[in-house]
Amino acid sequence: MDPIDMNYHRLILICILLLSATAQAQVPTESSLEQAVAAATDDLPHHVILIIGDGMDEQQVTIARNYLKGANGRLVMDRLPLRAASQILTTEDKLNGRPVYVADSANTATSMATGVVTSRGRLSTTAGGDKDIPTIAELAKAAGFKTGIVSTSSVTDATPAAFATHISYRLCENPDIVEQVEYKGIDLGGCPQDARKNGGLGAVSEQLANSNMDVILGGGSKHFAVNAEGQDISVLALAQSNGFQTIDSASALEASKPGQPLLGLFAESTLPVRLRGEDGRQAEMPEPSLLNRVHEYLGDAELPEVMICEPNPDFAEMPTLKQMTDAALAHLSANNDKGFFLMIESASIDKQSHERKPCGSIGEVEQLEEALQSALAFSRTHPKTLILVTADHSQAAQLIPYESLFSAYPIPVYTPGYLAQIETPEGSVMSVNYATTNFMMEEHTGAAVPLYANSQGQGKIPAFVQQPEIFKIMMDYLGL
Amino acid sequence: MDPIDMNYHRLILICILLLSATAQAQVPTESSLEQAVAAATDDLPHHVILIIGDGMDEQQVTIARNYLKGANGRLVMDRLPLRAASQILTTEDKLNGRPVYVADSANTATSMATGVVTSRGRLSTTAGGDKDIPTIAELAKAAGFKTGIVSTSSVTDATPAAFATHISYRLCENPDIVEQVEYKGIDLGGCPQDARKNGGLGAVSEQLANSNMDVILGGGSKHFAVNAEGQDISVLALAQSNGFQTIDSASALEASKPGQPLLGLFAESTLPVRLRGEDGRQAEMPEPSLLNRVHEYLGDAELPEVMICEPNPDFAEMPTLKQMTDAALAHLSANNDKGFFLMIESASIDKQSHERKPCGSIGEVEQLEEALQSALAFSRTHPKTLILVTADHSQAAQLIPYESLFSAYPIPVYTPGYLAQIETPEGSVMSVNYATTNFMMEEHTGAAVPLYANSQGQGKIPAFVQQPEIFKIMMDYLGL
Repeated sequence: MDPIDMNYHRLILICILLLSATAQAQVPTESSLEQAVAAATDDLPHHVILIIGDGMDEQQVTIARNYLKGANGRLVMDRLPLRAASQILTTEDKLNGRPVYVADSANTATSMATGVVTSRGRLSTTAGGDKDIPTIAELAKAAGFKTGIVSTSSVTDATPAAFATHISYRLCENPDIVEQVEYKGIDLGGCPQDARKNGGLGAVSEQLANSNMDVILGGGSKHFAVNAEGQDISVLALAQSNGFQTIDSASALEASKPGQPLLGLFAESTLPVRLRGEDGRQAEMPEPSLLNRVHEYLGDAELPEVMICEPNPDFAEMPTLKQMTDAALAHLSANNDKGFFLMIESASIDKQSHERKPCGSIGEVEQLEEALQSALAFSRTHPKTLILVTADHSQAAQLIPYESLFSAYPIPVYTPGYLAQIETPEGSVMSVNYATTNFMMEEHTGAAVPLYANSQGQGKIPAFVQQPEIFKIMMDYLGL
Repeated sequence: MDPIDMNYHRLILICILLLSATAQAQVPTESSLEQAVAAATDDLPHHVILIIGDGMDEQQVTIARNYLKGANGRLVMDRLPLRAASQILTTEDKLNGRPVYVADSANTATSMATGVVTSRGRLSTTAGGDKDIPTIAELAKAAGFKTGIVSTSSVTDATPAAFATHISYRLCENPDIVEQVEYKGIDLGGCPQDARKNGGLGAVSEQLANSNMDVILGGGSKHFAVNAEGQDISVLALAQSNGFQTIDSASALEASKPGQPLLGLFAESTLPVRLRGEDGRQAEMPEPSLLNRVHEYLGDAELPEVMICEPNPDFAEMPTLKQMTDAALAHLSANNDKGFFLMIESASIDKQSHERKPCGSIGEVEQLEEALQSALAFSRTHPKTLILVTADHSQAAQLIPYESLFSAYPIPVYTPGYLAQIETPEGSVMSVNYATTNFMMEEHTGAAVPLYANSQGQGKIPAFVQQPEIFKIMMDYLGL
């Protein structure tokens, strides 16, 4: 072949090859770019941060938004790209029991921790069968992830405990009360089958001390001060002998170093909350006049005075939920090329609502917001971080009109329950009502709750989930 | 140049051109496919169907889900792909007034109809200024779209009326009461400046009769039976003289033909609801024993008997919300190459909650579900249909525990408000509490409400919206 001819044929061949290669090499598109990014980040450690606002239903979120940001403002959680509804499920305490329509923090935390619907009061054990159910924290730990629980309640309280312990009744929080729990002489039940002497795993605090969690932060030191079951050492000493570094102050938390499991207990029981009503006031009963007692359409009623919220002095010494979150993130992410599961609870949205203290609940939503900001900051440097924010169940507080819808009627219109009238920073008055019981504590309510996620949740979370599906969403994200 | 050499250079040139062309011609990707589909459907008529469950907050949705589908079931709205929260906004009735935290159906419908925050009681007029604000229905009509309102309430009631009328006070529903509204001798206010004789647009029913809406379906015939202001003919006759075909029965609705504006009024006022409590019962007050009256921790209380929900016989003659929806869709889509705006309201979720009738509210959610199914079926043959489902504000009903969380305490724990205990088809008991007032009617509450959308909403609706943004989302979809 003539050399020029040969070159000519070579050139045609090269041209065909180049054309073919170009056709195959797709111009990068959004979805192929996403795939490339996904491929490049798939090897990164995967983290799940589950933030639970205990009792943080839509009423609580709106009350907090109005107070903290104004009615026209936006919370940090409002800016998350994804929001779904989570239907709460619970059941009678028997095999194949019928549905029960209002839950507690024990069964709801169990739903999220294990994916299994159980009965009220149970921590990661089955309704009726009383079988232990593996939790996401245990399964993640076994797969090489680090794990942590952080709460403003006692770490032995239902929400944190459900992720790390298994017990038939949530109130069996320490070895002294594992067989029987009493309150002012009233028998509230117990967990004899969970006592170690009966072959069980022991009380909640003892199970935590024996757990392989990497981080446990919150309140509840009194449950660790008592002796471990049948032993001469305290539950706290048991935890130390199991390798936990133990701390009890905000400054020690600040100074703590990763490398050893961390148990921080900053109060005897629940941590004091950030905000309280003016002079410690809570919601109060309207005082009907004598005439109004004779007939509800006569006379008038004295409503509780309008009040502001003020800082709670007892809170000053406490680490904030944000400080505990930052410490947990630092500990869990240090020397970690696998990833972690972290549950963070703002517990007293619920507890303060039980006690009819709207300012307390508002301050706890603010704490949750700050913890969420820390989680979001962490996710900016750790892109494979799924952040979920949700509540475990609804609560009693209702935002009701300050000026009644029926104010044109010459009749005193007021709630038969407890009422707080709070002046907000924007100068309006917000009326909050509690009326589920006549008892010293309000009940939970049964409405579905919000479920928010950061961008890592997109495409993984439908608009409506049943609460146990949250377990599966988190497990899938960790590849478990 | 040597001819071979020339060919050689030509070939290189062709090769370069081909390579360059191939590089530019992107392989079709998902997003370019979407663009192609979008381009092909952009010319289709665009429709917006806004479905409002009045008072349908998360408590109401959960109560209805538990009853209609079981706690483990899913509603039609639960299957919609998108769900956001909608923050309700209202204000004092003055220019630059302060926020008010609990709204009514007048200001909330105005938010959605006009994008403007106004004060309670106002229909598409400004707070303080009393200026008329154009509604999406009016703007869409002016741009060539057809428009309709459908409701289970009187069509003169706040929610439907806000889309088609402008008045300072919602209760001025007909010419006889445009200047003053009375209830049992109590002066509830009036709209003298809106009377025609004072240069206003007249009462709500008269404004509807003079409107250019294509479809108006619901209750409220009594507001059309009175004479038009200063005229010898009824408001209904006025509507007829303005070109409306008027009907008053389900069979006439079925038989109605497109081509002429349609005014259907099927009841004097609100349409009877589908479900009621057993033997017409509603929530009732617990009856404390004498001992319990002496001290709340002593004695006991008799709670209302458990009841089922039953069909309401008064409902039998009524067109269902689905039938009205189907008729509206048929009328609005006939000979329409531009599109339409349709507002559909299930009104008595709210009204029955005001009256402490949970079965009534549940039946109205069921009606909304059926109307949604009709809208979804329509969207399958009319792909450019944006369907939104939302509530205007929250309501008083709360799902509380049937067995108290505090049942271990030997104390009678019960609500100070009204209570209904409903046996659900799955055999459990659902307790519903109403305790915002001691008055004959419950108040609204202030929590943000759900906002659902079909797939046409994707990418257009953030996870959190302020209620007036719904106006903009709908306007954008219609290209207005």
